[in-house]
Amino acid sequence: MTELRRGAIGDRWVIVAPMRGRRPSDLISTGEKKKELAADKCPFCPGNENRTPPEIYRLPRSDGSWQVRVIPNKFPALGDESDGTARFRTDGLYQHMAGQGTHEVIIESPDHLKSIPDLPLTSVENIIDTFHIRLQEIRKDPRHRFVVLFENHGSKAGASLAHPHAQIIATPVVPPTVKAELQQTKMHYLQEKKCLFCELLKGELESGERLIEQTDEYVVFAPYASCFPFEITITPRQHVHSFTMMSTDQRKKLAAVLKGTLHLLKTSLEDPPYNLILQDAPNVSISSHTPDYLRSLEHSYHWRIAIIPRLTTMAGLEFATGFCVNPVSPEEAARFLKKQAI
Amino acid sequence: MTELRRGAIGDRWVIVAPMRGRRPSDLISTGEKKKELAADKCPFCPGNENRTPPEIYRLPRSDGSWQVRVIPNKFPALGDESDGTARFRTDGLYQHMAGQGTHEVIIESPDHLKSIPDLPLTSVENIIDTFHIRLQEIRKDPRHRFVVLFENHGSKAGASLAHPHAQIIATPVVPPTVKAELQQTKMHYLQEKKCLFCELLKGELESGERLIEQTDEYVVFAPYASCFPFEITITPRQHVHSFTMMSTDQRKKLAAVLKGTLHLLKTSLEDPPYNLILQDAPNVSISSHTPDYLRSLEHSYHWRIAIIPRLTTMAGLEFATGFCVNPVSPEEAARFLKKQAI
Repeated sequence: MTELRRGAIGDRWVIVAPMRGRRPSDLISTGEKKKELAADKCPFCPGNENRTPPEIYRLPRSDGSWQVRVIPNKFPALGDESDGTARFRTDGLYQHMAGQGTHEVIIESPDHLKSIPDLPLTSVENIIDTFHIRLQEIRKDPRHRFVVLFENHGSKAGASLAHPHAQIIATPVVPPTVKAELQQTKMHYLQEKKCLFCELLKGELESGERLIEQTDEYVVFAPYASCFPFEITITPRQHVHSFTMMSTDQRKKLAAVLKGTLHLLKTSLEDPPYNLILQDAPNVSISSHTPDYLRSLEHSYHWRIAIIPRLTTMAGLEFATGFCVNPVSPEEAARFLKKQAI
Repeated sequence: MTELRRGAIGDRWVIVAPMRGRRPSDLISTGEKKKELAADKCPFCPGNENRTPPEIYRLPRSDGSWQVRVIPNKFPALGDESDGTARFRTDGLYQHMAGQGTHEVIIESPDHLKSIPDLPLTSVENIIDTFHIRLQEIRKDPRHRFVVLFENHGSKAGASLAHPHAQIIATPVVPPTVKAELQQTKMHYLQEKKCLFCELLKGELESGERLIEQTDEYVVFAPYASCFPFEITITPRQHVHSFTMMSTDQRKKLAAVLKGTLHLLKTSLEDPPYNLILQDAPNVSISSHTPDYLRSLEHSYHWRIAIIPRLTTMAGLEFATGFCVNPVSPEEAARFLKKQAI
């Protein structure tokens, strides 16, 4: 059972998710050195399917094996709590609620060693399609107010198992940072009748100084206020609020752009650890919001993928101020990556 | 020359601080493995004083050597920019300003290997006194709106040199997270005529479940919404808004509590990497604010030290939601540490 807590000072929210059957001191060794499991011990490898929780979904192969598997996370940050009321309870100056939500793992291929840049394009298309299927399904539950898909690549980026996998988390509330962003983009839309992100994209295409790649459907660029060196945004050129709205053809094209971008990162920066985040519109339903609200959300949110290489270490300055410190300007990062692509 | 940037969406502020004379690709190797310098090569060790920028301050020994040295950071995140107007300039949808501020390094002792828990108490008192002297001095400049002291211990916590040292950064604006906290605590004070943090402390002393240690002057506890496992707060028992107001006797007592707490952490968790942050009231001066504002700030802000062990890795979930995920509840952390202390 996990718990969402809110402190008395500042808008700090924490998911307290005690490690089942482990003691606090176990963190000492896992913190210092994460052991890499060999393929024969890996619970995500073919033949070890019985070592994962019961499968939620699989993309089968004609020979009875699988191409992509989806399973519940064995150590979920959020789960199906019976009293999932999604309301903070007050305890003196503090607030808490049950950790209602869901936490799934998408095993991207049977191959223990190959991640998106190394897989054939059709395999990447299968992965993107599975993302699409699971996100659509999870968004059907109105308790899942915010649904996020992410991938941690490499132990320095927080991956606890080496076998390439993505994760989907659904939270019972829209996180404060996302709420603030929504408020800002909605306000902009109401005033200007334009999506703020579309305008930002137009500016990036015009200036070109942070542009890395563009196709007929997608734009790849280094964001102006990049928190991390070589941070990358991939976004549809046309306005779409949610990834779940993308057509089969658009998803195929995304697979190619994503594979290409991650391949560029891998070859330019020696396979860096990274976090990939699919930033999608919150999951608001007609039952809890007016049609006007829904329409303004659809017009003002613009989905995108953030790729965050983990080449620097967040330290005291970042925690004390909330400022990021980035030793590589996004203009320099885009120039460097474009030069490698040629 | 560094630059503060603000993105178009969200309130994300970034310090872009290009590494002098280094190329982006240099990050690849520094990201993976930081080389530890031997003492004879260490610019912070006695005999190598000429390898640091000119000294700002030293606490001398009677034999002509030094106990504590303060120098400018060789690679400052913020510096003395001539046009330090501390105003964001607009560039289309984006905003930026010159990275005005200061960035100092405090070399805590001549000893390359000994940090606060290993040093004699008098040495720790000298360190705390140096913190006090430099913070008082830096706060005299009204351009330094926010002054923060922090220490990164261990390369996994972002320390680039092993020789124990703290850093002080002054920023030209109060960071948004600090501003939001101030607004909240000031509002609470205006409504209740009480400091919110004093009330929180009273609750912690009554319940005791997150308490680690207390003396006549200081309280040490694990905060309710701990973002990180074994996160610790040290705070004065009585209301004081700024560390710079602490008397000689109070500073002596802080040295003992800080040494004891860091020693407990070191022995209980096998010398974990950590960030230490001295959270002090922003530096607002009479020239830019009304006496009423200053009075309410002094009544509502309560200084404290945060110690953040780095045993887990921030990953996709944290970046996507802004939520922290903590596998050790603060109640469990306090119990574990207290048991080790006996």
